[in-house]
Amino acid sequence: MLLKSNINDLKKILKSDKVLSSKEECYCYAQDSTNLRNTPMSPDAVIFVESIEDVQKVLKYANIHSIPVISRGAGTNMVGACVCEQGGIVLNFSRMNKILEFSPENLTMKVQPGVVLDDIKKLAESEGLFYPPDPSNFKVSTIGGSIAQSSGGASSFKYGTTKDYILSLKVVLPDGTLMKLGSGTVKDAVGYHLNQLIIGSEGTLAVVVEAELKLIPKPETSSLVTAYFKSIEDAIQGVNTIIKERIFPATIDFMDSNSIITVEKFYPSGLNTKSECMLIVELDGIEESVNSQMQKTVHALECSNSTEINCILDEADKDRVWTSRRSSFAASAKLGVDVVTDDIIVPRTSLSQMIKSCQRICEKYNLTLCLVGHVGDGNIHPQIVLNLENDDEFKNYQDAKAEIYDAAIKLGGTISAEHGVGMEKLSYMKQTVDENALEYMKRIKKLFDPNNILNPGKIFKV
Amino acid sequence: MLLKSNINDLKKILKSDKVLSSKEECYCYAQDSTNLRNTPMSPDAVIFVESIEDVQKVLKYANIHSIPVISRGAGTNMVGACVCEQGGIVLNFSRMNKILEFSPENLTMKVQPGVVLDDIKKLAESEGLFYPPDPSNFKVSTIGGSIAQSSGGASSFKYGTTKDYILSLKVVLPDGTLMKLGSGTVKDAVGYHLNQLIIGSEGTLAVVVEAELKLIPKPETSSLVTAYFKSIEDAIQGVNTIIKERIFPATIDFMDSNSIITVEKFYPSGLNTKSECMLIVELDGIEESVNSQMQKTVHALECSNSTEINCILDEADKDRVWTSRRSSFAASAKLGVDVVTDDIIVPRTSLSQMIKSCQRICEKYNLTLCLVGHVGDGNIHPQIVLNLENDDEFKNYQDAKAEIYDAAIKLGGTISAEHGVGMEKLSYMKQTVDENALEYMKRIKKLFDPNNILNPGKIFKV
Repeated sequence: MLLKSNINDLKKILKSDKVLSSKEECYCYAQDSTNLRNTPMSPDAVIFVESIEDVQKVLKYANIHSIPVISRGAGTNMVGACVCEQGGIVLNFSRMNKILEFSPENLTMKVQPGVVLDDIKKLAESEGLFYPPDPSNFKVSTIGGSIAQSSGGASSFKYGTTKDYILSLKVVLPDGTLMKLGSGTVKDAVGYHLNQLIIGSEGTLAVVVEAELKLIPKPETSSLVTAYFKSIEDAIQGVNTIIKERIFPATIDFMDSNSIITVEKFYPSGLNTKSECMLIVELDGIEESVNSQMQKTVHALECSNSTEINCILDEADKDRVWTSRRSSFAASAKLGVDVVTDDIIVPRTSLSQMIKSCQRICEKYNLTLCLVGHVGDGNIHPQIVLNLENDDEFKNYQDAKAEIYDAAIKLGGTISAEHGVGMEKLSYMKQTVDENALEYMKRIKKLFDPNNILNPGKIFKV
Repeated sequence: MLLKSNINDLKKILKSDKVLSSKEECYCYAQDSTNLRNTPMSPDAVIFVESIEDVQKVLKYANIHSIPVISRGAGTNMVGACVCEQGGIVLNFSRMNKILEFSPENLTMKVQPGVVLDDIKKLAESEGLFYPPDPSNFKVSTIGGSIAQSSGGASSFKYGTTKDYILSLKVVLPDGTLMKLGSGTVKDAVGYHLNQLIIGSEGTLAVVVEAELKLIPKPETSSLVTAYFKSIEDAIQGVNTIIKERIFPATIDFMDSNSIITVEKFYPSGLNTKSECMLIVELDGIEESVNSQMQKTVHALECSNSTEINCILDEADKDRVWTSRRSSFAASAKLGVDVVTDDIIVPRTSLSQMIKSCQRICEKYNLTLCLVGHVGDGNIHPQIVLNLENDDEFKNYQDAKAEIYDAAIKLGGTISAEHGVGMEKLSYMKQTVDENALEYMKRIKKLFDPNNILNPGKIFKV
């Protein structure tokens, strides 16, 4: 816990209007978007950094005084990655939200960490360009958070994830040292890829203060195909047939029966509630290409026993489908007191088995499951509805979660595809990650952050 | 230098038919594809490892006895990355050349480090799949070398480089420890991206003994557009116009007048030798898309004052153009005693200026220059013809190189896009890489390889 003198020091080091320290103000930063059973500790101070120098000053001070520092964007992560384990300082990046440079000719954009993804996407689009990563909260989430969590999204099947769109980073180390990693060019074979080490490190190695992004030409148009199925196996067969036919959709997404029914209950938009599951396939490119791929996709889905296939060309209709899909979390939240979204990934060949395992496990533990996912990647999001305050339900949920992770690992998958580890999955690291690799992660952590002030208690305990 | 007893130990630890140690045999491994003025030292032993266990045994022994270990694939790199600075052991991976697993449904392939890229590409293609990275020596170079050097190639404009196609790695540390990095799924947000740290580390951190690759659906077809120009500015304007028109070619490659003339002299294939330079634009996708993009590309190139545009659909004709382009190095080698290929990258907006700087600098130092490059990425390969044994020419070349690197760095670029650093560019690291980043690279090196046995004297001196 910070002493009153620390708070006063920080107010002196920065301007006092950058530092919040009252209990009420700090309490707002006790939570992120993770549904936790126990409200974590509030930070002792929240600092609205406005410049790289501000970040350097805070870190330098915190490092000397061994004060935890937790960087925070929009707080939309789902693994407790920016809550406080033991109080400390939250660095709030909402004032470092400028787009510093946009070069359509170089296909690059230089941004501060607090910039919202949607602003990046929109500015790129204004020049016919595209920043693909699209975590479902992209309308509010920030690039800093994306980098910390190595965010993916629906379009990662074709376009990859955040790590594929970061050309260079500026980061501050605990002792205040500023480093530039990467060159800002699209290829760089000069020394170790330290920027890739920072991406996905959840703010535990260094604080990102600037990023240069890679953009690509924006696909001319896109269409959706939705397809309903009588069984999970048929749907996954549909995914495999699409790939076998060399179609390369931007997205192959999935909703199970419970998700469809729940979304329709609260946000009716005409999904077929009588099917076992559905696929949402987004095709993009130039118009001729999209049309031709659409025909092939329809054929592939027909061959996989789809019971209903819809081709959706109209923008408003496309938006409606995506809004339904993205509302799945909000809708399932209305089914009970709490909903917890998980994130696992397995090789595509094990998808049916994995989805059925999730269903069987949740049934065994009497938990309501709405399952969605980016099945093109083998990535599913089991959304489990429960009352976290209820001891029995919580115990069941913990057991179910462990069994789900176990199943994913046994099938050659892993326990986080795009959400990260945070506090929530920390205790499963040993099961998932090679023990020597885990040891080297810890050594690298020690190298970058010897006093363990950066987001302590996340990914692993040091 | 290894003692006779070391050689005997190694022959005992492995089978003796795996160990070469005669002067004559070792001399073959003194060089890689880099044109060096002085032939580097021969290794003292060359070990044909056949298994992960072999690698573990050798490293363990070498680590105890502080013997340098240099991993070697096909030796096609151009920066002295697998020559010996001070003797030691060359690990030859030519017997670890098996494709261990190919799963078309998962779009993955598991390979040993000695597998030749062309074999990976061909096997993928047999199932309609695609492994994009295509360094120009892909018919002989290995995946292990690609990973070490973070290889790119002509198709990286659309498809990225090696780092974008590695899902997981198995690596051996100097003390013999085996680690698995990454999960083999296409997304993985569990802890630090240690596999990305190994890619491009030129065998200085760990020895890669297995890799799992990501494949994508193979584009149905492709076409080439070649375009000739009266000036560099017009050609680069052509590149920018293509991008502005939201065309997304697989490749935008470039040859200057000297390269065209030289290639035609030795491998005549009908290129227009009267132009100042040419672009080679490869478009891929489904047929309708390629046709439509081709029309747009032609229009974009016309608007950029191209003097001659050819659309090439026939497979044999396409092959001929690519063979010409890839023969550029071999052809320019015939212009003099030696040719040295460099590799620099700048933001696309600075390309004309960079190319002209190379021409001006080489003229100033009276050096023959043939310049080719992947201009879609801003990446150029100045090929400088000279006699390395001639003191004056060598001095001129050294000065010219320094000025070229200086120009690239001033324009916001860097000194290696896809070849790596090796021994050749080591002395320019300080100019190129942020000094704190360089310091952290050294610390990471020390963490992984405390006795500095892995490829010592490459990337930086420790």
